[in-house]
Amino acid sequence: MKYIDLNADIGEGFGDYLIADDAALMPLITSANVACGFHAGDAVIMAKTVALAKKYQVDLGAHVGFPDLSGFGRRRMHIEPEVMAHYVTYQLGALSAFARAADYPLTHMSFHGALGNMVSEDAQLARVLLQAVKDFDAQMIISTMPGNAVERMARELNLPVICTFLADRAYESNGLLVSRAKPDAVIHDKEQVRTRIRQLLREGTVQSIDGVTLPVAATSILVHGDTPESLEMVHTLREIIAEMGIALMPPGQQRRLLARENALL
Amino acid sequence: MKYIDLNADIGEGFGDYLIADDAALMPLITSANVACGFHAGDAVIMAKTVALAKKYQVDLGAHVGFPDLSGFGRRRMHIEPEVMAHYVTYQLGALSAFARAADYPLTHMSFHGALGNMVSEDAQLARVLLQAVKDFDAQMIISTMPGNAVERMARELNLPVICTFLADRAYESNGLLVSRAKPDAVIHDKEQVRTRIRQLLREGTVQSIDGVTLPVAATSILVHGDTPESLEMVHTLREIIAEMGIALMPPGQQRRLLARENALL
Amino acid sequence: MKYIDLNADIGEGFGDYLIADDAALMPLITSANVACGFHAGDAVIMAKTVALAKKYQVDLGAHVGFPDLSGFGRRRMHIEPEVMAHYVTYQLGALSAFARAADYPLTHMSFHGALGNMVSEDAQLARVLLQAVKDFDAQMIISTMPGNAVERMARELNLPVICTFLADRAYESNGLLVSRAKPDAVIHDKEQVRTRIRQLLREGTVQSIDGVTLPVAATSILVHGDTPESLEMVHTLREIIAEMGIALMPPGQQRRLLARENALL
Amino acid sequence: MKYIDLNADIGEGFGDYLIADDAALMPLITSANVACGFHAGDAVIMAKTVALAKKYQVDLGAHVGFPDLSGFGRRRMHIEPEVMAHYVTYQLGALSAFARAADYPLTHMSFHGALGNMVSEDAQLARVLLQAVKDFDAQMIISTMPGNAVERMARELNLPVICTFLADRAYESNGLLVSRAKPDAVIHDKEQVRTRIRQLLREGTVQSIDGVTLPVAATSILVHGDTPESLEMVHTLREIIAEMGIALMPPGQQRRLLARENALL
Repeated sequence: MKYIDLNADIGEGFGDYLIADDAALMPLITSANVACGFHAGDAVIMAKTVALAKKYQVDLGAHVGFPDLSGFGRRRMHIEPEVMAHYVTYQLGALSAFARAADYPLTHMSFHGALGNMVSEDAQLARVLLQAVKDFDAQMIISTMPGNAVERMARELNLPVICTFLADRAYESNGLLVSRAKPDAVIHDKEQVRTRIRQLLREGTVQSIDGVTLPVAATSILVHGDTPESLEMVHTLREIIAEMGIALMPPGQQRRLLARENALL
Repeated sequence: MKYIDLNADIGEGFGDYLIADDAALMPLITSANVACGFHAGDAVIMAKTVALAKKYQVDLGAHVGFPDLSGFGRRRMHIEPEVMAHYVTYQLGALSAFARAADYPLTHMSFHGALGNMVSEDAQLARVLLQAVKDFDAQMIISTMPGNAVERMARELNLPVICTFLADRAYESNGLLVSRAKPDAVIHDKEQVRTRIRQLLREGTVQSIDGVTLPVAATSILVHGDTPESLEMVHTLREIIAEMGIALMPPGQQRRLLARENALL
Repeated sequence: MKYIDLNADIGEGFGDYLIADDAALMPLITSANVACGFHAGDAVIMAKTVALAKKYQVDLGAHVGFPDLSGFGRRRMHIEPEVMAHYVTYQLGALSAFARAADYPLTHMSFHGALGNMVSEDAQLARVLLQAVKDFDAQMIISTMPGNAVERMARELNLPVICTFLADRAYESNGLLVSRAKPDAVIHDKEQVRTRIRQLLREGTVQSIDGVTLPVAATSILVHGDTPESLEMVHTLREIIAEMGIALMPPGQQRRLLARENALL
Repeated sequence: MKYIDLNADIGEGFGDYLIADDAALMPLITSANVACGFHAGDAVIMAKTVALAKKYQVDLGAHVGFPDLSGFGRRRMHIEPEVMAHYVTYQLGALSAFARAADYPLTHMSFHGALGNMVSEDAQLARVLLQAVKDFDAQMIISTMPGNAVERMARELNLPVICTFLADRAYESNGLLVSRAKPDAVIHDKEQVRTRIRQLLREGTVQSIDGVTLPVAATSILVHGDTPESLEMVHTLREIIAEMGIALMPPGQQRRLLARENALL
């Protein structure tokens, strides 16, 4: 691996409510998924987050979720795909307005929480929602776990894709995440997380929960910033990346590099 | 007067709730102010309304209001101008996404309800909110009553302006609307409304509540469509306009015409 | 059958938004299920509805739903039962405050929309939500379709129950409603609706969609008031009931009658 | 002074969002004002807060605010008094349901934030809102600053009252709080806060910002728990109270004591 994106969910407060120290996390990452006011986030926080992203030249993405602030978008809602598609458009537009006002581009999007789970399992839902993304901006990079319905549909619709690795989540042998309902779904041991990251960066693989070595088609790592501990982990991660001589590269730059390489073929 | 815009507030439903027969009103008007989800409207209704506007080639505008669905944006809220400015950006962006997805332009914006009243009286608030509009799109036409703080600030900020006449509202001798708190603020007599419209179109004036003949710098008439009666009034209005040989012309076209005339000078 | 309750969903507006003509429907029914601000309804409408119910001595019930105003509570949400139980308590309390302020009793409750569907299928969810109802008021009458999880759990928890018949919905041979997803789930033919009501009132049975004669343990009929047509149907229904010499009796009175009969045994 | 209530605003989170460490604060206070879901709080947090209050036998009160979650109820809204009265009823009912389910009494209420400011200045608003409180429960104790419209109207309506002292806020010579807009409105020096509390407890007076010694008719002190520092201040406060031999006494007990004393006269 020659380059990697460090990606985080940002701007998840609401009104006076805050969750993570966004100002501390932003300088450490290369791309941010910004809540758009449905599951979290509001206009004031979005404006501040866009300004922070621009200041640190962090790629700006829309983190699109269910209209469920009291549940933080973590509860499955059975919304008709066509209706949810309009919710996607609304959220993309709201965030893009702050990007436009700040003269800073919106590069990517991803699906949050329960919506992210549902759309990664349901090709029909993925098709309808990604078509809405494409109708809004055919150049929007789709950030997703590799191998799920979102990745497949995004490629079918010719939308650019960046795949994300979760360093603290166990993987099944089929490449999907171990459900949080199962024990050992989340890896709390920091040394193990570091080992996994080194393996990913060196070999592009991960050990599944059953011990199988899986290839991982990811050029982005999702990090957390909601506790002092998680912030510290991001620092460690950056040290590992620097030691290994791997470049930090946000999604937009990765995409331009890939386009250049393809053009040279 | 050679041309006039027929303007209406549209898309003021929410979820299953509807207020006016938008599908009946849209073919009769030349510009629509679309609620953006704060005081009314939601993503589904916005998508439908944009599609309707495109179908009838009605100019699309954002109707920006307070975050107060239960009060329909009609209650004054003392929100810091900088915070309200972010709410403006959010709403403009949300609607613009549907416009962009439909490949149809967003031409204008106006302030709704209690926000509209407050911003028309408060130059400082007007400056901050209109700067937010300009940061989003410096070509956005500001739709407002003539002579208030919004018009003045929009001109100071070099934003294009279209001024609106309210056929069923009484005017003070200073050119401002008679407050709804006073008796006779709203003109219910239809014949009187028709007379006022004829006077406006022929002479560009209106009689104030004190009987003074006032010049009205308006090239747009705000119409209502929330009752069968109000819809009928729009038909009557169109007949009067046709009889007088005046062209119906939406704000965007008015602006291009004006730009062309200025260029010829 | 010697008595019957005429039951309707009432107060389903929000802010300026209205759905049905509550003032026209209220005098025609004997019990009302009032939306409590989650899927519909707000404090102002609740206060007005309680006053209307008191005026016409209509039994007052809480119509409890999902926190989903934009979806009118019709979209399934996967909320943990313990969390949803707190939402139930909140809604019961909100409505009961208006009842208390008006010195008028809250007699019953029912589950609305998608929550109603989920809880009627899921005994575990029904148990947790009904326990919350019981903790709030052990005398609260549970209004439900007969034969589902809500009825079973309510009886297990010793909560009083009233069962409801839907005159315009087809029944499967197992006594459950035909899903709206299937054709012929809703009976639009008015003559057929009248025939079903006569059969129910005379024989206590209904013909299933497969032609089987089913016993119906219902002493309440759910009526609609959201269109002039549906209002007219309620008038017809009252005529049939009067012709057959059956008494109109709200849930609270039915319950007291039953208690008296049981005491006499 | 022989007894004092330690009062705090509690349960001001929403969904996953938290503001203060309620579990740490609750054992230290004698009465809690609980947010009811309008400016903060939700059903889950309300249920937890009521359970905590019951566990530590802390008097339970409703903290009633504007329907403005994104502004935390701190922005003035011009809502008609009759409409706001219904919002008051709704909030009282919602919290009372959790109290009832927990078999624990609701003793008092106070107005939050911008609503608190508006109602303390406006006798007409105070009358309408307090009448709504009385219609809900004529025994509800009204917690307020002494000397404002709320206290006057509560006494006029024969509602029981408890007056509150703010140890970290400067007072004008007329007994009202110095506006936060002015410098020195908030007292940050902890030693000064301690001195003020000692003076209040010993002499029942406070020095105004102009150095005038004012009598303070307060038997409750409002404390904060939103920072580790503020929690520490509550501990200090309890030490001072213990050293001075003053009893901690919640509003309900104060009221019963007063009633007994009045009966003995």
